Amino acid sequence: MLRANIQFILYVNGILLCLLAMLMILPALVDLAFDNPDAMVFAVSALLTFTFGALLAIANKTDKVPPGRTLFYLLTVSIWLIVSIFASIPLALSSLSIDIVDVYFETVSGLTTTGSTILIGLDHLPPGLLLWRSLLQWFGGIGIVVMAMVVLPALRVGGMQLFRTESSDISGKILPRARQIATVMAAAYVSLTLICAIALHIAGMSAFDAINHALTTLSTGGFSTHDASIGDYDSVAIETVTIVFMALAAMPIIFFARIVIEPRAASFRDEQVRGLLMTLLAAILLVTAWNFLFRGVPLADALRDSAFSVTAVLTGTGYSTVDFSAWGSFAAGVFFFLFFIGGCAGSTAGGIKIFRWQIMLRAVANQLRTTLSPNRIVILRYRGQSVDPPMRNSINSFFFLYLLTYAGLSLAVMATGLDFVSAASAVAQAIGNVGPGLGPLVGPATTFAGIPDSAKLLLVLSMLLGRLELITLYVILTRDYWD
Amino acid sequence: MLRANIQFILYVNGILLCLLAMLMILPALVDLAFDNPDAMVFAVSALLTFTFGALLAIANKTDKVPPGRTLFYLLTVSIWLIVSIFASIPLALSSLSIDIVDVYFETVSGLTTTGSTILIGLDHLPPGLLLWRSLLQWFGGIGIVVMAMVVLPALRVGGMQLFRTESSDISGKILPRARQIATVMAAAYVSLTLICAIALHIAGMSAFDAINHALTTLSTGGFSTHDASIGDYDSVAIETVTIVFMALAAMPIIFFARIVIEPRAASFRDEQVRGLLMTLLAAILLVTAWNFLFRGVPLADALRDSAFSVTAVLTGTGYSTVDFSAWGSFAAGVFFFLFFIGGCAGSTAGGIKIFRWQIMLRAVANQLRTTLSPNRIVILRYRGQSVDPPMRNSINSFFFLYLLTYAGLSLAVMATGLDFVSAASAVAQAIGNVGPGLGPLVGPATTFAGIPDSAKLLLVLSMLLGRLELITLYVILTRDYWD
Repeated sequence: MLRANIQFILYVNGILLCLLAMLMILPALVDLAFDNPDAMVFAVSALLTFTFGALLAIANKTDKVPPGRTLFYLLTVSIWLIVSIFASIPLALSSLSIDIVDVYFETVSGLTTTGSTILIGLDHLPPGLLLWRSLLQWFGGIGIVVMAMVVLPALRVGGMQLFRTESSDISGKILPRARQIATVMAAAYVSLTLICAIALHIAGMSAFDAINHALTTLSTGGFSTHDASIGDYDSVAIETVTIVFMALAAMPIIFFARIVIEPRAASFRDEQVRGLLMTLLAAILLVTAWNFLFRGVPLADALRDSAFSVTAVLTGTGYSTVDFSAWGSFAAGVFFFLFFIGGCAGSTAGGIKIFRWQIMLRAVANQLRTTLSPNRIVILRYRGQSVDPPMRNSINSFFFLYLLTYAGLSLAVMATGLDFVSAASAVAQAIGNVGPGLGPLVGPATTFAGIPDSAKLLLVLSMLLGRLELITLYVILTRDYWD
Repeated sequence: MLRANIQFILYVNGILLCLLAMLMILPALVDLAFDNPDAMVFAVSALLTFTFGALLAIANKTDKVPPGRTLFYLLTVSIWLIVSIFASIPLALSSLSIDIVDVYFETVSGLTTTGSTILIGLDHLPPGLLLWRSLLQWFGGIGIVVMAMVVLPALRVGGMQLFRTESSDISGKILPRARQIATVMAAAYVSLTLICAIALHIAGMSAFDAINHALTTLSTGGFSTHDASIGDYDSVAIETVTIVFMALAAMPIIFFARIVIEPRAASFRDEQVRGLLMTLLAAILLVTAWNFLFRGVPLADALRDSAFSVTAVLTGTGYSTVDFSAWGSFAAGVFFFLFFIGGCAGSTAGGIKIFRWQIMLRAVANQLRTTLSPNRIVILRYRGQSVDPPMRNSINSFFFLYLLTYAGLSLAVMATGLDFVSAASAVAQAIGNVGPGLGPLVGPATTFAGIPDSAKLLLVLSMLLGRLELITLYVILTRDYWD
């Protein structure tokens, strides 16, 4: 590892810590306005983080970006680790006196926009802390989108190179281009968050709740200001607004930027967006039919609850209005498989992602054809591009690694003592960055407070692995990387 | 569909029905010797089956095999359906008065060498019926091996074409070569069964039990003559013999033929065989460690029970000595994943199969390397052959289809009312042709008698799909096939 590389990594992390510190000022101001003593906690955290970040940035200040892509794998991983550690400070110092494992769990769950929580009694939490949790998800969401649109395609992670042409440039020029794209994205992200907040307020939420939920909806995060999540309001209007914005948040954010620039080209005919909407529709119909036909739920209720729960899970937001894991094993099975599907690449949604499923499904259809006629050449096309064998290998390997990692982490969580369904669903939702698992221990009706610390740490690892799209971390662990 | 093709399909099925009828004579003779009235049942079944088969064969007698491979997909599927229907006759007519769904479940579970049973009170069953169940598995085993070594490679099913050079010829010449290979295989299969029977008898089984268990061990079937399966004997000697022969039965049968012909070339250095043995060893150590360290089981007992249960599940035999699904969620998780792994191609073991896992693992390792250096060309080799992109597509598509089919069938079984773990494990074991599932409803301590008929039929479909390696059936369902 070259000295210049380490310097660059520390420099970028220093700058991000300064940004994180500025983010901590907001809850400090809110707590100050509400006369809450936690204001001091956020001020101290901000000071600590800023000092450390500024020192890091100044000491390692560098103008030249090291050449090549290799460094960016390590940079990406280091950012997630370092930022999540410093982002833990406010919760660690807060008046809630939370255990350190819980603090890190909550913080990583926030930054990765997973939304699993270990906190009980959200309704009585100081406003600054509530806002901080929401801001963690929103800030994490920006990082994820930039990473998904700029870094991962250049790093050729799991077929993300498909999206290289539309958003990022070839290696070596990652950073300047990143700034430009980040600006466009941020504009779309901020506008959508504002519109969502206004819509939620009109639908009946208090201004404070509306802002918090807008921050955690657009980041497909799912932290709420109530223990009962969106179910607390029991309002069709609020649920409808939330469903719409959760679905929008699972679409590529560049899609909205393009709608403004060239409205005609960027219709909903985008294959990925259409795939997401079709999957949503199919799953909602399936779960509605199950609840209506086999569980005797009135059609309107069945549709309302299914639409909300399916959208919350597929987009990886993870809000809840009812305990969908108590709808019988069939519904639980559907939600379990939704944990693995995920949203669109270029959004904050996690999971295996729609485009990989679409390409793998087409590959299977082609395979059945070539099985019959081995000499026939069938070209696999996606969004107007041909998907060549290296790209398909990349996607297949991602899928295989995702499932292997899932299996290994599930077994590890089972070894901590969790039952089969809790462990299998907790890891599935964590690696897919969803939020709630299934069953009485980790399902939507409860929090993750009741599971052992070892299980919590394994779920933290799952969330981070999911966010890094696995490959980014695994590449660093190969011997080739360090040669 | 050409008239000549239908004629050929009916002709082959007719001949197989005649063979099946001859197989029915054996239990008839046994029941006659034991003065059991079921002798008549088998005689009548044999007569019915033989008459129908002979008429079919004579009416459609043909000397010329239709050209091309296409026909063989339909032929393979038709054989499984027609043979399983006629093989159901003895159980349907027997004095046990079993429900028709149960009869078909038991028969398909036999022929596919799955080994799930719906019968309770095996210890008091007439000897003819017990032998018939064992023969079903043994006869099914022959069919599976011939299919795996001759038909599937030629049909290019899920990467089985890798094994084409070693056992089968190019398309159009399937049948003559099939006869020759079938002879060599049958010799190895019969010899191993005899040796196993003698070893089991020496280890303490009665001659009748030894023959039955030898038949169901070499076919990795798992039907027993006792409700408590191998656990009934509580004998380390019997368990050891069974473990050895279950492991041998999960190796390619051609491997044994080659040991006789050229002992030096065919060492245990065969990658597939080594992969099987390493997987067995790793899983046994894992489960032993779990039972010894975390559940306080004495080391000797932990090793004995783990070795037996892991070997029984991984090889797809499915015998049991203890209720391994009650060893806590970690052990249950390990067994659940073993359901998917399976044995070697060219054996009677089911599942995704060792060679596919090995190739996919190597593809992932290569992928991590090419992620770093996109221009680097890495050749994937397996057993001395290079695995080209079409072959990898074939294997990846198989894996993806296997999991999709699994997911769909699990959801369907959940919809019949089974709980999550029962449904998920029952389908996993059925599609992998293992035998027992997990939990109190379908686990090793019980039978499948207690689940709804609709779930039983879905499991029948799972067993058949697993045996046909999915693709064989799916190809027939494409429109291209019938053009």
